Amino acid sequence: MLWGGRFDDKLDNDALRFSSSLSFDINLIEEDILVSKVHSEMLFKIGLITETEFNQIQKGLNQILAEWKDEKWNLKQNEFEDIHSAIESKLTELIGNQAGKLHTGRSRNDQVATDMKLWIRKVLQNIIELLTVTQKVFVTLAEDNVETIIPGYTHLQRAQPVSFAFHLLAYVEMFEADKNRFKNILTEIEECPLGSGALAGSTFSLDRNFTAKKLGFKSPTTNALNSVSDRDYLLDFLNACSIGMMHLSRLAEEIILWSSSEWELISLSDKFTTGSSLMPQKKNPDLAELTRGKTGRVYGNQLSLLTTLKGLPLSYNRDMQEDKEPVFDSFKTYFSSLKIVMMMMQTVKIFKERFLNELQNDFLLATDLADWLVIKGIPFREAHEVVGKLVKYCEDNSKTFGDISLNEMQSINKIFDKSALECLNIKTSLQRKKTYGSPNPKLVKKQIADWKKRFNAK
Amino acid sequence: MLWGGRFDDKLDNDALRFSSSLSFDINLIEEDILVSKVHSEMLFKIGLITETEFNQIQKGLNQILAEWKDEKWNLKQNEFEDIHSAIESKLTELIGNQAGKLHTGRSRNDQVATDMKLWIRKVLQNIIELLTVTQKVFVTLAEDNVETIIPGYTHLQRAQPVSFAFHLLAYVEMFEADKNRFKNILTEIEECPLGSGALAGSTFSLDRNFTAKKLGFKSPTTNALNSVSDRDYLLDFLNACSIGMMHLSRLAEEIILWSSSEWELISLSDKFTTGSSLMPQKKNPDLAELTRGKTGRVYGNQLSLLTTLKGLPLSYNRDMQEDKEPVFDSFKTYFSSLKIVMMMMQTVKIFKERFLNELQNDFLLATDLADWLVIKGIPFREAHEVVGKLVKYCEDNSKTFGDISLNEMQSINKIFDKSALECLNIKTSLQRKKTYGSPNPKLVKKQIADWKKRFNAK
Amino acid sequence: MLWGGRFDDKLDNDALRFSSSLSFDINLIEEDILVSKVHSEMLFKIGLITETEFNQIQKGLNQILAEWKDEKWNLKQNEFEDIHSAIESKLTELIGNQAGKLHTGRSRNDQVATDMKLWIRKVLQNIIELLTVTQKVFVTLAEDNVETIIPGYTHLQRAQPVSFAFHLLAYVEMFEADKNRFKNILTEIEECPLGSGALAGSTFSLDRNFTAKKLGFKSPTTNALNSVSDRDYLLDFLNACSIGMMHLSRLAEEIILWSSSEWELISLSDKFTTGSSLMPQKKNPDLAELTRGKTGRVYGNQLSLLTTLKGLPLSYNRDMQEDKEPVFDSFKTYFSSLKIVMMMMQTVKIFKERFLNELQNDFLLATDLADWLVIKGIPFREAHEVVGKLVKYCEDNSKTFGDISLNEMQSINKIFDKSALECLNIKTSLQRKKTYGSPNPKLVKKQIADWKKRFNAK
Amino acid sequence: MLWGGRFDDKLDNDALRFSSSLSFDINLIEEDILVSKVHSEMLFKIGLITETEFNQIQKGLNQILAEWKDEKWNLKQNEFEDIHSAIESKLTELIGNQAGKLHTGRSRNDQVATDMKLWIRKVLQNIIELLTVTQKVFVTLAEDNVETIIPGYTHLQRAQPVSFAFHLLAYVEMFEADKNRFKNILTEIEECPLGSGALAGSTFSLDRNFTAKKLGFKSPTTNALNSVSDRDYLLDFLNACSIGMMHLSRLAEEIILWSSSEWELISLSDKFTTGSSLMPQKKNPDLAELTRGKTGRVYGNQLSLLTTLKGLPLSYNRDMQEDKEPVFDSFKTYFSSLKIVMMMMQTVKIFKERFLNELQNDFLLATDLADWLVIKGIPFREAHEVVGKLVKYCEDNSKTFGDISLNEMQSINKIFDKSALECLNIKTSLQRKKTYGSPNPKLVKKQIADWKKRFNAK
Repeated sequence: MLWGGRFDDKLDNDALRFSSSLSFDINLIEEDILVSKVHSEMLFKIGLITETEFNQIQKGLNQILAEWKDEKWNLKQNEFEDIHSAIESKLTELIGNQAGKLHTGRSRNDQVATDMKLWIRKVLQNIIELLTVTQKVFVTLAEDNVETIIPGYTHLQRAQPVSFAFHLLAYVEMFEADKNRFKNILTEIEECPLGSGALAGSTFSLDRNFTAKKLGFKSPTTNALNSVSDRDYLLDFLNACSIGMMHLSRLAEEIILWSSSEWELISLSDKFTTGSSLMPQKKNPDLAELTRGKTGRVYGNQLSLLTTLKGLPLSYNRDMQEDKEPVFDSFKTYFSSLKIVMMMMQTVKIFKERFLNELQNDFLLATDLADWLVIKGIPFREAHEVVGKLVKYCEDNSKTFGDISLNEMQSINKIFDKSALECLNIKTSLQRKKTYGSPNPKLVKKQIADWKKRFNAK
Repeated sequence: MLWGGRFDDKLDNDALRFSSSLSFDINLIEEDILVSKVHSEMLFKIGLITETEFNQIQKGLNQILAEWKDEKWNLKQNEFEDIHSAIESKLTELIGNQAGKLHTGRSRNDQVATDMKLWIRKVLQNIIELLTVTQKVFVTLAEDNVETIIPGYTHLQRAQPVSFAFHLLAYVEMFEADKNRFKNILTEIEECPLGSGALAGSTFSLDRNFTAKKLGFKSPTTNALNSVSDRDYLLDFLNACSIGMMHLSRLAEEIILWSSSEWELISLSDKFTTGSSLMPQKKNPDLAELTRGKTGRVYGNQLSLLTTLKGLPLSYNRDMQEDKEPVFDSFKTYFSSLKIVMMMMQTVKIFKERFLNELQNDFLLATDLADWLVIKGIPFREAHEVVGKLVKYCEDNSKTFGDISLNEMQSINKIFDKSALECLNIKTSLQRKKTYGSPNPKLVKKQIADWKKRFNAK
Repeated sequence: MLWGGRFDDKLDNDALRFSSSLSFDINLIEEDILVSKVHSEMLFKIGLITETEFNQIQKGLNQILAEWKDEKWNLKQNEFEDIHSAIESKLTELIGNQAGKLHTGRSRNDQVATDMKLWIRKVLQNIIELLTVTQKVFVTLAEDNVETIIPGYTHLQRAQPVSFAFHLLAYVEMFEADKNRFKNILTEIEECPLGSGALAGSTFSLDRNFTAKKLGFKSPTTNALNSVSDRDYLLDFLNACSIGMMHLSRLAEEIILWSSSEWELISLSDKFTTGSSLMPQKKNPDLAELTRGKTGRVYGNQLSLLTTLKGLPLSYNRDMQEDKEPVFDSFKTYFSSLKIVMMMMQTVKIFKERFLNELQNDFLLATDLADWLVIKGIPFREAHEVVGKLVKYCEDNSKTFGDISLNEMQSINKIFDKSALECLNIKTSLQRKKTYGSPNPKLVKKQIADWKKRFNAK
Repeated sequence: MLWGGRFDDKLDNDALRFSSSLSFDINLIEEDILVSKVHSEMLFKIGLITETEFNQIQKGLNQILAEWKDEKWNLKQNEFEDIHSAIESKLTELIGNQAGKLHTGRSRNDQVATDMKLWIRKVLQNIIELLTVTQKVFVTLAEDNVETIIPGYTHLQRAQPVSFAFHLLAYVEMFEADKNRFKNILTEIEECPLGSGALAGSTFSLDRNFTAKKLGFKSPTTNALNSVSDRDYLLDFLNACSIGMMHLSRLAEEIILWSSSEWELISLSDKFTTGSSLMPQKKNPDLAELTRGKTGRVYGNQLSLLTTLKGLPLSYNRDMQEDKEPVFDSFKTYFSSLKIVMMMMQTVKIFKERFLNELQNDFLLATDLADWLVIKGIPFREAHEVVGKLVKYCEDNSKTFGDISLNEMQSINKIFDKSALECLNIKTSLQRKKTYGSPNPKLVKKQIADWKKRFNAK
């Protein structure tokens, strides 16, 4: 135990189990040992420990990490309050009481804050990389589907024809936004809390610049109180995970719809579907469902930490120990979901011709027809009304834009002529789009090229 | 694997890890095996399996449970989708292909729904018992503090004197409300889903009444679709845990305040406090802080499942697998927090005299004085104004109700006489309370007696 | 203002705007006036006000309510802290300083707690009624669709055939569960907080039994402290609204799917769909989408109050004023969503034949075929494998269960004979279901009859 | 209505009320009219409307805005679906059917997305300014309290002495972090969605660069689908509000504690406190409580939109209309809370001498004493133990560091000498701090100077 002088009784066993964070902060072992090594180096540099002590501590810490990695450290989870206690205890075993010098001028408060920032920095880099990999998968798939016409939906009603490529590029943009969100967090963790002590710094002349630089930070933090009670970067991390999961949940929903018998737009690989224990014919998009479902836990984690931090007086309160599990879980859940989605899309089969005929016999080009009327000088609102009536005429007479005659169109409004029929051809519909950002294949190809350039630039 | 006939490829390894629920639904092993035993008994009863097969299955299941309890089952978590697959696979090892008959007429959907209801029933009973134990601890403490006068607060400002017993009994009521909330869930899980199949029942004449009764339910569920997609009872359970934690968080906040140097009303046992790794003098109410902090995760769990269920079409979707971890975690967190709070209060020391003098020299009896004026015929609003001015007079002149003279009082309002001074005595203030539900010691003793009678009745 | 004696300065204007609850607690005007009338009756009864004063107060309060209802009360929202202040001020205008006697022996804390319980009681009754109306609409629709075969889904993959009636009855059960959840809250609000004062009762001999009974409660509350700080019933109300909305969101999702061009199972009435400002052909299920979307705000409201209450010390804190808006909003949102869903379903058109042919040419009866094999003595797991292979054979050869020959089946497994083909007939599939709770039309009709009996019984 | 050609029936009245967004999107009137003016300018530029039509439209739109501002527009909320419909209808009244040309080449989807980005841009600027004003108030207060010694707390237990200035600067840093968080959102909304149509752009050659620049954006968005369904910036806004409120809730909690009779560190101005309707002596920190309490609704709003967006297929779904109310409410709540907190702190009175004597007779310098031992060559862990025992000795003998003798200290450990006593002087304790970021007055003054320089730089 790292304290005890003033206590008569030991912590109750139930209480130790209730309060120990070792089962999850063991995740931070590499960061914690690195921080201790740098801290001891600094203690040596400013003369608080000798070179021999410094060398002993380094050796001891290296050995602990090595034993841990080799699964040789028989760590008893129920005996320690946290990773810091466990390591100090083990270090004492290895090098004797000199281990007790390691904690000079530091508190678990600034130590764990430093550990967490290092850990977050590491996983941010992993996430950003995986997002790029995923974008590449989507762009590759898009490249193959620039001419694959599918209905674009609003309200899950068929709205206007788009290409599957265009649809995929919307997700590539979302992933880019996710990347930026995670990158912003990197700039939030540029200052090193180590040396802030419990809340008020130290009477020792700790060289905070040294430890900050050595640990890869830009500079030390400027207010010790804030240093130990700031969890903003974790909240921003949880928020970025939530928004990232929200994006994945939207795609997951679409994958589920597209895989249904009703849509039948894609077929997922056997490797990424499962069967039923009862119904022999089933092939279920479980992984997409799980991705959608796990959104709940990632939102829950974010809310959990927000709730925990509400109304806490400064500076450190033990409540804050509850910051770790939600963060670890959101990372794991988001990262693995992203990877699974990436792999699902890498192996998906698209039925490119699925919608072509069906869309020809539908009303998705109603807007284009209204636009045609506008060109003829009719105010858009009136044009909208005219085409609306035409659609109603078709429905009442079981017709579609695929088999309506010019005569019938003229019975609704005389202005229609042959050229109006041209804008009812689904196959050329994308080409008729003129605006920047539209699914016009020329523009989509340009977007794809731009993305590829960007990936190479990195 | 429980399926595979129609698949060319096996599930990807990452995908299996992502989707397997075994790491947490192993929690349900006792329930799952019980359900299988009862199901096989029914299959035998209706002639779908022979007596020999039935006996083999029973024996095999018993052995699996025994091995599990003896920690002899070397269960490889990464090889199975879930507890059901793992058990069926192990059963096949033990008794051969006859194990394949166990799944006749059932799906994992109805099976896991039944498992969960059994598990919830079990933990509800544990929680209800612990709540009663906790109430008893509080009532015992109250009994010893009927005359312990403390300031009652509103807005964390001293409002009126109350007794510590009266304060404790407010929590006893909250625990009673919690108990009722958990009991209501018992009535929500009286119907057995087993026999609902995947979503549409079975072509076999399964005897659902038999299995329902045997498993301790009142009757089978009446709609197979709803049976496999209903998670209401889990949401109600999570809600009850959230409200329970909210109650504990309020008490935790008070314990933290009461333990502060500023309040100094209680002293927690060394067994339920911890120290600082840096500051030798610290004795921290960590367990109360953790209880308050863990409220976040319990709220988060509730939100997590609510989010997951939002907008899911009927019937079962794999998203629903995400129901278990939040439920298991909320149970564990709430139950252990309650236990810790109970133990903290069992060992707490109250400084009974802490506030007596201080309150005498304060303004907590201002309302009583206003009431005195009302009796003299002054409308309450005016009486309030008069006493307000008296308080202001005191503050402006650095006086308190403890040292103001009758003359001074009369300078504010002539109506004051000697009897007014009597209602400024803090020691007799509780006795002057007349309403049912007030901290009058006579009434509080009656409440304590009522609670004890109720505990004995159970 | 209801206070001020001890203050030098008036509340800042921004601060008044920030803190005033009048804009929303005006919702409680009827309850608040009723409470005041009953309170003054009691004050008269115990001799704290005279008959004349009592009559004046009654008359004044009646007039205020009447003016409010006639929209003649020119209430300036920015001048009052809350509804109680506004009413007392108005009453003073009407009857003079005797109005100041009304607040004798009570606080806004116990008053507003009583108001809220009365308000909740009222809306609970409205909700329960509307749930019954909705159930009747669903049962009526079910009655007409006992033979309407649709695919039952798990994982949004076609699983087994069910009837539309069977599907609807799952929702009828959910509404019943909702009703029970709301009814439970009625039992939670049987005790009256009036007379609890600010937190510690009163030195007056208030007759709390009288006011409790007169206001329709069973009895007064037993602990004044808990009485003014208890918000459990509001949390339970918010939870019931959340679960209710979750149910509606599931139905909304299904309505959206069923209305899509891909499903085309239903057509919503023009009265409950909207168009697009741009695309003339669009007919969108906006009301279902909004219902699904509004689930977010109802969850948010629940979380909002849970967060607010976390860690508050006893008794009343001003934070608690934040209980009202979420409760009012969740009521309004849930109630209007339920009503809209009820009306949508009342006017929906079902395309009863939509799926019949398609299902015949699908694999939904795979489970029945496996069951057939079980009857022939094959262990279910093996039967599952055999049928799985048959499905794969069909898929590889572009066949369905509608056009596979007995020969082909026998090439997979010799055991198949003519009778196996019988269980591949979709039209008779429901009739072959044997279990209680299944979609067998006989059972579904029985369920419908049971529901109707239950509605009549009420 | 902006649609209707294809419909037989009008929208049901209940349904209109349920779905209309006019009551809240009226907030966007200035932005909506600006967008329409720029859009029509572009339509004129590319020849889709004539100069006369353009002028008419401008004039009409200007008039509508003017009437609105002058409260002359008698807008019937129950007649319109949204602000866009209301304006188009009013414009038609004013300028006739040419109004129908305004909607050419645009959809409400891209229009409202543009409106919202403009609105967010505006409020971001307001928030950032108010945060700077608040920082200045805190820095000014800090400047006056560099030597005001208060206990620094961890676990709400007195830990080490700090200055009130140091404590305030922690909040100044939090506000700076908030500012950066809001500024990041500005870079997220640099692209203009206008011209994206409903989801797929337009067949007209709309000049999206023109409208983007004219509206102050950097460029048009690059994918129409993503443009209309992206709500990330609103989620980030809600997150920034949540974290901002969390910071305020921590300060609010401290203000409440500091105002309590137990702490008595500050006195709030009468302008920012309220009284009790019942208890004449009360002076409550209601505004701090409300700020803390309102954290719940801001969290709730964030969760609300996250939930709403979960699992929505692309592109626009009506669910998304539910994005506005939470955003408007979180802005209003956070902005007004920040303003109130700023004003409270501007008028607060600090009791600078409150803690001085009390801290001298406490154990807050235990760490400094342990540090002293370290300098003497004792490993920190041992030094910690020694000082812990000294604290225990004091407690057991009712002594403090203020009255312990050197003899007594030496009875615990011989190494103590006179110089040890020097580090037990509270008055010089801050000066002894050496680390960057500590409460050493020299460093704190430097921080204050740095902040002031930064404010001037802006």
